Amino acid sequence: MKKPNKSNTQLWTGRFQESVSDAVIDYTGSLDVDRRLAPQDLEGTRAHVQMLSSQGILSESNCESILNALSQVETEIKENQFPYRSELEDIHMNIESRLIELVGPSGAGVHSARSRNDQVSLDIKLYSRKTTNCWKNQLLNLQDSFLDRSEDLKEELFPAWTHLQVAQPISWSHYLLSFCVMFARDIERLESYQIRTSTSPLGAGAVAGSTLPINPEITAQTLGFKQSFENSYDVVGNRDFVLELLQIATQLMIHVSRLAEDFIYMSSSGVGWLRLPESLCTGSSMMPQKQNPDVLELARGRAASVLGHTQAVSTLLKGLPTSYHRDLQEDKTHLFATADIVTSTLRILPLIILGFQICRDKYTHLFKESFLESTDLAEYLVEQDVPFREAHRQVGKLVSYCASKNKALQELTDEEIQKWNPKCTKAVLKSLDPKSSLKRRNHKGGTGVKAVEKQLEHWHNWIKERRKTVSMK
Amino acid sequence: MKKPNKSNTQLWTGRFQESVSDAVIDYTGSLDVDRRLAPQDLEGTRAHVQMLSSQGILSESNCESILNALSQVETEIKENQFPYRSELEDIHMNIESRLIELVGPSGAGVHSARSRNDQVSLDIKLYSRKTTNCWKNQLLNLQDSFLDRSEDLKEELFPAWTHLQVAQPISWSHYLLSFCVMFARDIERLESYQIRTSTSPLGAGAVAGSTLPINPEITAQTLGFKQSFENSYDVVGNRDFVLELLQIATQLMIHVSRLAEDFIYMSSSGVGWLRLPESLCTGSSMMPQKQNPDVLELARGRAASVLGHTQAVSTLLKGLPTSYHRDLQEDKTHLFATADIVTSTLRILPLIILGFQICRDKYTHLFKESFLESTDLAEYLVEQDVPFREAHRQVGKLVSYCASKNKALQELTDEEIQKWNPKCTKAVLKSLDPKSSLKRRNHKGGTGVKAVEKQLEHWHNWIKERRKTVSMK
Amino acid sequence: MKKPNKSNTQLWTGRFQESVSDAVIDYTGSLDVDRRLAPQDLEGTRAHVQMLSSQGILSESNCESILNALSQVETEIKENQFPYRSELEDIHMNIESRLIELVGPSGAGVHSARSRNDQVSLDIKLYSRKTTNCWKNQLLNLQDSFLDRSEDLKEELFPAWTHLQVAQPISWSHYLLSFCVMFARDIERLESYQIRTSTSPLGAGAVAGSTLPINPEITAQTLGFKQSFENSYDVVGNRDFVLELLQIATQLMIHVSRLAEDFIYMSSSGVGWLRLPESLCTGSSMMPQKQNPDVLELARGRAASVLGHTQAVSTLLKGLPTSYHRDLQEDKTHLFATADIVTSTLRILPLIILGFQICRDKYTHLFKESFLESTDLAEYLVEQDVPFREAHRQVGKLVSYCASKNKALQELTDEEIQKWNPKCTKAVLKSLDPKSSLKRRNHKGGTGVKAVEKQLEHWHNWIKERRKTVSMK
Amino acid sequence: MKKPNKSNTQLWTGRFQESVSDAVIDYTGSLDVDRRLAPQDLEGTRAHVQMLSSQGILSESNCESILNALSQVETEIKENQFPYRSELEDIHMNIESRLIELVGPSGAGVHSARSRNDQVSLDIKLYSRKTTNCWKNQLLNLQDSFLDRSEDLKEELFPAWTHLQVAQPISWSHYLLSFCVMFARDIERLESYQIRTSTSPLGAGAVAGSTLPINPEITAQTLGFKQSFENSYDVVGNRDFVLELLQIATQLMIHVSRLAEDFIYMSSSGVGWLRLPESLCTGSSMMPQKQNPDVLELARGRAASVLGHTQAVSTLLKGLPTSYHRDLQEDKTHLFATADIVTSTLRILPLIILGFQICRDKYTHLFKESFLESTDLAEYLVEQDVPFREAHRQVGKLVSYCASKNKALQELTDEEIQKWNPKCTKAVLKSLDPKSSLKRRNHKGGTGVKAVEKQLEHWHNWIKERRKTVSMK
Repeated sequence: MKKPNKSNTQLWTGRFQESVSDAVIDYTGSLDVDRRLAPQDLEGTRAHVQMLSSQGILSESNCESILNALSQVETEIKENQFPYRSELEDIHMNIESRLIELVGPSGAGVHSARSRNDQVSLDIKLYSRKTTNCWKNQLLNLQDSFLDRSEDLKEELFPAWTHLQVAQPISWSHYLLSFCVMFARDIERLESYQIRTSTSPLGAGAVAGSTLPINPEITAQTLGFKQSFENSYDVVGNRDFVLELLQIATQLMIHVSRLAEDFIYMSSSGVGWLRLPESLCTGSSMMPQKQNPDVLELARGRAASVLGHTQAVSTLLKGLPTSYHRDLQEDKTHLFATADIVTSTLRILPLIILGFQICRDKYTHLFKESFLESTDLAEYLVEQDVPFREAHRQVGKLVSYCASKNKALQELTDEEIQKWNPKCTKAVLKSLDPKSSLKRRNHKGGTGVKAVEKQLEHWHNWIKERRKTVSMK
Repeated sequence: MKKPNKSNTQLWTGRFQESVSDAVIDYTGSLDVDRRLAPQDLEGTRAHVQMLSSQGILSESNCESILNALSQVETEIKENQFPYRSELEDIHMNIESRLIELVGPSGAGVHSARSRNDQVSLDIKLYSRKTTNCWKNQLLNLQDSFLDRSEDLKEELFPAWTHLQVAQPISWSHYLLSFCVMFARDIERLESYQIRTSTSPLGAGAVAGSTLPINPEITAQTLGFKQSFENSYDVVGNRDFVLELLQIATQLMIHVSRLAEDFIYMSSSGVGWLRLPESLCTGSSMMPQKQNPDVLELARGRAASVLGHTQAVSTLLKGLPTSYHRDLQEDKTHLFATADIVTSTLRILPLIILGFQICRDKYTHLFKESFLESTDLAEYLVEQDVPFREAHRQVGKLVSYCASKNKALQELTDEEIQKWNPKCTKAVLKSLDPKSSLKRRNHKGGTGVKAVEKQLEHWHNWIKERRKTVSMK
Repeated sequence: MKKPNKSNTQLWTGRFQESVSDAVIDYTGSLDVDRRLAPQDLEGTRAHVQMLSSQGILSESNCESILNALSQVETEIKENQFPYRSELEDIHMNIESRLIELVGPSGAGVHSARSRNDQVSLDIKLYSRKTTNCWKNQLLNLQDSFLDRSEDLKEELFPAWTHLQVAQPISWSHYLLSFCVMFARDIERLESYQIRTSTSPLGAGAVAGSTLPINPEITAQTLGFKQSFENSYDVVGNRDFVLELLQIATQLMIHVSRLAEDFIYMSSSGVGWLRLPESLCTGSSMMPQKQNPDVLELARGRAASVLGHTQAVSTLLKGLPTSYHRDLQEDKTHLFATADIVTSTLRILPLIILGFQICRDKYTHLFKESFLESTDLAEYLVEQDVPFREAHRQVGKLVSYCASKNKALQELTDEEIQKWNPKCTKAVLKSLDPKSSLKRRNHKGGTGVKAVEKQLEHWHNWIKERRKTVSMK
Repeated sequence: MKKPNKSNTQLWTGRFQESVSDAVIDYTGSLDVDRRLAPQDLEGTRAHVQMLSSQGILSESNCESILNALSQVETEIKENQFPYRSELEDIHMNIESRLIELVGPSGAGVHSARSRNDQVSLDIKLYSRKTTNCWKNQLLNLQDSFLDRSEDLKEELFPAWTHLQVAQPISWSHYLLSFCVMFARDIERLESYQIRTSTSPLGAGAVAGSTLPINPEITAQTLGFKQSFENSYDVVGNRDFVLELLQIATQLMIHVSRLAEDFIYMSSSGVGWLRLPESLCTGSSMMPQKQNPDVLELARGRAASVLGHTQAVSTLLKGLPTSYHRDLQEDKTHLFATADIVTSTLRILPLIILGFQICRDKYTHLFKESFLESTDLAEYLVEQDVPFREAHRQVGKLVSYCASKNKALQELTDEEIQKWNPKCTKAVLKSLDPKSSLKRRNHKGGTGVKAVEKQLEHWHNWIKERRKTVSMK
């Protein structure tokens, strides 16, 4: 079962009398997954080597030749010339092995005072930092697309629903700006995450640090972290920063899925309140006439995948003993899959927001037929000193009467109105039309034009401030 | 199928011609779950009524009689005298209904400019705030228990493992302090959560705010929130703050589960490195001799439950259209179950940390037999200018030789050592005993006594600072 | 911290020198959750005692007095007279303790050759069996409601969608019968589950069986199981039958959630293709005019809860060592919560299916406007020897032409048609109207009237056969 | 943003006036994932074409040339010569497009009366069937490895635990055979799954079947299914068979994870009851002496991944409207990832079972020190007519006495015994040694040698029967 060309190539086989089974190498290798960490591995190794040199653990000339070799490796990887060897388990051992090839025996000093345990943790942390920056920037772009559309729709009526039953008239701007609030919460979580996880793990070694005179704070600084680790034992088994990033992604993709659900609903044949840009739809292999909202459906479906990935990492960590265990290798599959989903989804969403068309004629009738002025009418009665619950009951009765007569509120005769409530008139009902309804809701956070203008101003400033702090690293 | 005493008691039936089926009332009612929100509902209602009054929507005398009635309701609930009626759906309608009974028709004004949509959201937010404060305080107590035990164990050796294979010697203090780092991450997440979610939803109404002249910023201030909501449409369908709290609880309980796994392992019959306090164990119904670590097993098992609750709420929200939908009612079951688990678990854990005994004789032999000085030896060779990877290989070979001869490293003869490496001597090996190993790891985050003393000092200060900011509200 | 009245009441404290902490009793007790297992505990205990007696381990008179006492306990529980004591941990110890009170010291023989480990496993298995029977019966009732409605709607057109875009005309019957297929899959899973899990765990003891001359096959037979356990070590740590039941419930509730989603969509204000019975809707606390599909929304939301419960039990079991661990106690919370959700949901769903009204006028226009005859037209061309992919392309072009002219296919002039395809005529297009489309789909599983009649016949027979095998035990 | 070479190559663009955005093609394409379905796609297409021909929808010569082209495509794929084009979305369109290239225009008839909706469903079902067969066969091999090891260990004592506290002596065979029961449950689920899901979806078309004179029962038979679909509407949106397979995989991997947990525990440094084969361990990059159980840790970690994949598909389906939606595309990612994990894990596990060594000297002392004869002693008292609960209490007291004196039960003097219980003697205690304990547990499912021999016989027969029915298709 053993093929000589695979076993014995590992860099840790000194202690083994039997060579490692190829079945094991196949089962445990992770190169296909972790090769994308190459840039992070190179960045971390550079910082490590410089620290070793400044602490006198590595000679200056040795340091220089390793740094040169690292540059060559970087070029090889970029130009697809790097000689990947799957039998070397992972990207970290591939790079170290290639270094030794290039530098000669002294290159073997690169792993002094380092274990894959702290090395891998560092690489994932650098990757997470890059991902966080990317998402933050994309979310700001997405918010921009909502702002753009909101600018001209401040007086355009939208039949706001609860329970998918139309409820009250608001403006399209108010509706669209609600997504700015949603995605702002995601941005704020990302910002808080970045600050709290800015800790370098390098120097923790396998679990107990090192007896060599290292200085973890130097590498932390070189790599742009706020601080180095507090406790070497904690750091090697810590994947909290992976789980939290996935949890943030779960929340973010839930937001996306709710947006997608709304737009699929509104563009569905039965509803038709909006039309998606044709160039963002796809067709059917059998039915020639179809134009389907596949992008939004996939975004919604991929939210489910992100939930699953988050669940996988939660379950992975639950009940695991502290310190490093090989189970942790599985975190990367889920992190990378999630990163790909979120990044590609945030890239395509603004196209939809900027491109959809409103189909007013499909819902205008609802403002009239669906008694959307009911709450305003009850609140009118409150202003006439009817206690709210009683006002609610009275309006309910009136609506029930209208429904049985198949009439809209505006179609009631003065006689019908007076019989119901002597304080009320056709004129009062008329004054409750949707446009005036909007106007009366100008408190903070409301749907009135002025309130919406304040929201717009708020978001313009908020996004501008945020943009200043986005690092693209 | 209809019993007259259930239907028609709802406060929203004006519009209905048929009365609501009892089957519906049974299926949709939530009083058993949400009755624990009574304190929050009263607090929120008080603030709402005061705002209505200060805005002139409610007369001062009306306001006063409602506030008095709220006090009576509070007393009735505290003293188990409150006449709960399950046919009134939920705690909110129970309290409003009771208010009207006590105040007379004018009590019906309490719900002016308010919907259950913003009311429920507020109540859950107040509950989440209280829960967050409680957990933070409990986590600080738990950290204290680790600090207490760490104080005297700075030189007590602990056979640190990776992969559950002993790896390197560290101190018990270093091991125990790693949990302070873990739980500090939870505390920092809770703090960030509190700041970011300090937004009052009151005033958003059903979805579109209100036409009455309300001022949401007043209620926000009264209730101690940093601000009022940005967008009424967003707020009624927003349960992000519930999901994030559950995600934090998931992370926290994963920490607990890893701690539990460690202690179950170390107190298991096959290991025995520590003994749990007898008063915290339980016995077997069949086997008279058993003492089992049930508390830790339940804590670990309940971590699984919290993962499930978090998953439930994620799935609940994924793909839901924006705005309020009744699905959201299910969030409370999972929030409350999680709160109960976390709170009761954090209450009992410090007893275990403060009470366990170390059984040194069960693991001392491992320091000798398990070649724990190997890494130090390799690092010694690095100091003799052997590149690390080569040093690693050489030590591996030596360990393999020892294993085949069934010898510890310390038992090698000078001859055996010299044959292996002329630069090395028995004296060198001797200098690598576990105690001296500790001493050489005094870099920041290391396990050396001085490094551990710095950790202790850090945590004492850290906890003291935190305690100042814990609100018990 | 210790109150004398709680500790020392446990039945397993002989070996303990310190009494068990009250904090432990509070944290580990499960009476509130497992009291609903009383009927199963009594049934299992009866069978156990009879076996002990028939094997000569218990005297006949002792057996008789215990059986009498069990009857009394049963009565006490039914009549709410049972003296529950939470300090006795769980329902099992409560019943055993009460037995000893009633029978005197000889009652203490009831637990011979039994441990809570096999006892609890048995009780849950009996509970699962009862639950399975209940669900199966309810699912058959639900299928009946779909059959009832399908009977008269075989020629009633339904605008079948894919991607929520209308696709092709089918009949309402065909649409409704698709749910019979769905729920039949659930029934078949339940049936398979019952057969495969019909194994009695009693006799496995704590983990190693018993040295007393027990006969597990007797108790298995008495309790109606197909067989007794194969291996005592396996059985005490086995909760696979709980997890599988939850997995089946997950699938079942996913079906319910998809049904709910359809009906919420079709009854939403924007769509309106059907109307839910008013008596199954609920209103709004603020908006007087609302009638909301709360039952369906809760059913959909509770599907999420069941997913969470299933996830909790999966995570609970993952990575747990074999044999019994206290973590397993958590399974019951999730099993019972799931049972309650599924049972109450299946009880209310048939009311909705039997009660909804079709609102034909809301969708009839779609058959004309949405080019639903496109696929038929392409297939017509195939019959004229145009290869399908080419036919698809041609029809696509025609539809695009119509869309740009804002015309339905039926509105094209002969000239326009001929220009497009000389083989085609207005008559051909006319023959592709929805009604005739149905008629041409009479292959097995199709939507044609004859094919639907076959489906109806199939389900009538299928349900009748199933009903014969439903046990109500 | 549009590159001409991507858009317009789709086979369904007839109806589109704008060409589809490249961003959409990138986001929606699935070729990288679904290319592994090529064999299933070819098998299904063959059956479809033959049916079309036998029903006269395709001419015989056309059929023949398509079948020939399919053979060529098959060869191209096997020999890595197939010209994959990612802009053609998926493997299905790639194959159809290549067919048309090879056959000319008449090849375009292959998609008559077929939609990707039923085609994809078929391909996944064929893939699931193959996977099921593979797993069943692998599970039988795994059972064999347990049987092999059990053969010689019928009298080899194993210190069975509950709560990881040693509980009672059983034999190693009994312990190992418990895994046969576990994995037998998985096999039985797979068998039941295969029977219940043996339904061909082909012929359901996009959602409504076809107007061409197809016969779905012919394709069902050709492809080896028990039957064709019952309802075309159900079938296109049905992924229950994917979810159920993942649920089975979850259960199976939970079993694997519990096995892994046991073996990691028993081979850990602190325990050492068994040694894993060196060739199945891996080393550390920093610590030269380490041999780690990475394979088992990865197996345990990958169980978490499978749980996550199952959760993803559950969440994907929950709340999705019926019929086909593009969300469903995500099912494949999770199905394939799961298939890879389960298959590779089941391949490597038997090596571990066949290779581990028992280290008796690490646990023999536990039989003496840990009072494992306590339950037997209590049962001995029961035979002397002491009611069990009283016997349990008495033995508990004795054990507590021994613990305080630091004595094993066997070390008690006659005097100490008599003081405790006059009926008992040293001889009685002696007779309760572990070996004799085993002998007294010969009831069905017990750990006695005879009982274990019956288990062995049972499994030999069971596996032999199963092997007959494993299809390798």
